[in-house]
Amino acid sequence: MNAEIITIGRELLDGSLVDTNTAYVGSRLRVLGATVTRSTSVPDDPRAIEEVLARAMNSADIVITTGGLGPTSDDRTKHVVARLLDRQLVLDEEVLASVRSHFESQGLAMPEINLSQAMIPEGARAIDNALGTAPGLLLERGGVILFVLPGVPVEMKRMVETYVIPFLEGRGLKRLAEERLVRTTGVPESEVAELVDPVAKRLARTDVAYLASATGVDVLLICRGESAAQARRTADRAAERVAELLGDAVYATGEDSLEQVVGYLLSMAGKSLAVAESCTGGRLGWRLTRVSGSSEYFVGGVISYSNELKKKLLGVKTGTLRKHGAVSAEVAEEMADGVRARTKADYGVAITGTAGPGGGTPEKPVGLVHIAVSWERGSRGERYQFRGGRDTVRERAAQAALDLLRRALMNPRGT
Amino acid sequence: MNAEIITIGRELLDGSLVDTNTAYVGSRLRVLGATVTRSTSVPDDPRAIEEVLARAMNSADIVITTGGLGPTSDDRTKHVVARLLDRQLVLDEEVLASVRSHFESQGLAMPEINLSQAMIPEGARAIDNALGTAPGLLLERGGVILFVLPGVPVEMKRMVETYVIPFLEGRGLKRLAEERLVRTTGVPESEVAELVDPVAKRLARTDVAYLASATGVDVLLICRGESAAQARRTADRAAERVAELLGDAVYATGEDSLEQVVGYLLSMAGKSLAVAESCTGGRLGWRLTRVSGSSEYFVGGVISYSNELKKKLLGVKTGTLRKHGAVSAEVAEEMADGVRARTKADYGVAITGTAGPGGGTPEKPVGLVHIAVSWERGSRGERYQFRGGRDTVRERAAQAALDLLRRALMNPRGT
Repeated sequence: MNAEIITIGRELLDGSLVDTNTAYVGSRLRVLGATVTRSTSVPDDPRAIEEVLARAMNSADIVITTGGLGPTSDDRTKHVVARLLDRQLVLDEEVLASVRSHFESQGLAMPEINLSQAMIPEGARAIDNALGTAPGLLLERGGVILFVLPGVPVEMKRMVETYVIPFLEGRGLKRLAEERLVRTTGVPESEVAELVDPVAKRLARTDVAYLASATGVDVLLICRGESAAQARRTADRAAERVAELLGDAVYATGEDSLEQVVGYLLSMAGKSLAVAESCTGGRLGWRLTRVSGSSEYFVGGVISYSNELKKKLLGVKTGTLRKHGAVSAEVAEEMADGVRARTKADYGVAITGTAGPGGGTPEKPVGLVHIAVSWERGSRGERYQFRGGRDTVRERAAQAALDLLRRALMNPRGT
Repeated sequence: MNAEIITIGRELLDGSLVDTNTAYVGSRLRVLGATVTRSTSVPDDPRAIEEVLARAMNSADIVITTGGLGPTSDDRTKHVVARLLDRQLVLDEEVLASVRSHFESQGLAMPEINLSQAMIPEGARAIDNALGTAPGLLLERGGVILFVLPGVPVEMKRMVETYVIPFLEGRGLKRLAEERLVRTTGVPESEVAELVDPVAKRLARTDVAYLASATGVDVLLICRGESAAQARRTADRAAERVAELLGDAVYATGEDSLEQVVGYLLSMAGKSLAVAESCTGGRLGWRLTRVSGSSEYFVGGVISYSNELKKKLLGVKTGTLRKHGAVSAEVAEEMADGVRARTKADYGVAITGTAGPGGGTPEKPVGLVHIAVSWERGSRGERYQFRGGRDTVRERAAQAALDLLRRALMNPRGT
């Protein structure tokens, strides 16, 4: 089945707003095995909407519009749809009751003008908007299915999940595609592809995409099957095979973030963690505490941005700073030991580096970062040379620290 | 002048990638007074590209495409353009030299296949790609200007700034619109609009948009004029007027972030700063250190996620924790005083709160946050009740802390 997406709103065209609805709808349709062949953004102008909508209804099996349903433009879009599909606007009692109760629940009488919200094209089905006022619409003509959805992402997403997908499944679209994510960090995209590509080509019914970001490469496997169960089995096997190939660069098969994985490992081991951050300024702590429940294992730590605080709050020795400089393996190690000692945490992680743009030297260029992990039975230290702007270097450093910690937690007896 | 944007790539339609190019190009054209009437995304398929491009060339004065110029699909897009505009592909010596030197600078000979990159439609001008390999193209037909740009945002943006905008200015498009941002935090969008709308309506040649995010509302003023100078004057006056209306909720007129503004104020006062973060876990420190040069005034601080660390590293009293609980004005104050005392910084800022999703009680619901600022001559404390998910609450708390600090720095003698 082919689908087209139409997003409506001047703000999508003049740069006020990035259209995220298209990507969302596209990803949901992909899982159902439908292919989006085109997406178009037009301003909230009846002629423009009608032209694009007419073409789409003649080209695709499924058409989904978002936007153009706000209180001021509501009737306009509905009129376009009604005219194009040759339908009258009629009063929908259920929508009327819903709009009325929306006002009554606030102790207000429904203003006359809101009657129009309950007018929908004859034969259309209204889709309840649990999070806003304007209902969505479902219409069909000559085998083409048209969904008219609001533009506000949360309202639109809710309708897609609770109505659009179940409806399309009822029409025979099946989740014949299953997706798996194999998440890696620390290995460049080209190396990941070099390892995975030869094998991926031989995997039946499987497409591979590499999603590279500043902090790692996710291998996305899209697996099809004759049935949902078969697609699932294919996907499980493919993910397992790819994870094997990539070895310990893989931190998760699934949606888990690296901080979640580190959290599981700490919880399972019953160990606590403290951080000492210099150049990252708190990024590592922020990421660890994005995991709800992280207070079970994360006690906190020190942002030792200045050398004074490295000494005062972490006990880094003046001699070490003087001899090796703040960005050094030795200082990272003393920071990790220091934060562990002062917080009584089981694990200490420390980051010190030069994020730039200034402050680089030939021996210690911008992007040089030292990371250390310290625990009762051992320690690990690594030197990294990251590329990118200030925040990219810092984000990469936080990611590398989480990964070094992950490796330490998986092998707590080694050094 | 009307413009159309065409973004090319399957990944834009299947949900792998959000299209940010359209918004970027749209915002740049807006400043030149051009209106984007439509944007279309199509997969990397010659027939789809040709159909959309042909229509756009017949409807708009300016057409800008992005994407579909990668090493594998390069020729395809160029062939579509050449066929549609009835041109031969010819060798461009300058492009050839540039591609060749790209390889030679890496000590490599240029592979035969890359010769094709130097083939461009007859009469087209190649646009140098300083950040990648595929050049952009400029073609004209019957008064319509076509730019063919790469899809990688940094490469595309660079060409827009250094080539597309100057070219269009040369063609008589002028920066007849000037934009100003008036940035506020702590006031809901509806209140900002209520204050600004009545005045904005009377401002000549000025459009107003409210850009609301989790951490504040930016008032965007788009001002036109008969000349660039007039537009600038109009914009300056409008920004001044709006900033007056909004009073001390305004932290910047311009692009500056709140952490930059706080940085200026600290630098100007010659004062240093330390943070004590509980629920934000390092977010405040991260934001402060996003400003390059922040080491001049930011010394660091403590992430006191556990109560133990609040006592151990900040000297918060056991009695205070027991009597008022960790999320209280009293604990926030002791944290701010404590971090200031232990780091010898001039200003201490502390955050303690319940970010959720668990941990709320009727007296201390999720979203309750106490923030304190402490300095030699005074202190400030505020209680906030934030809405939103865990990370939204934490992001809002960090923003509120920066804003409380800003207010303290502007009135250092008051309490």
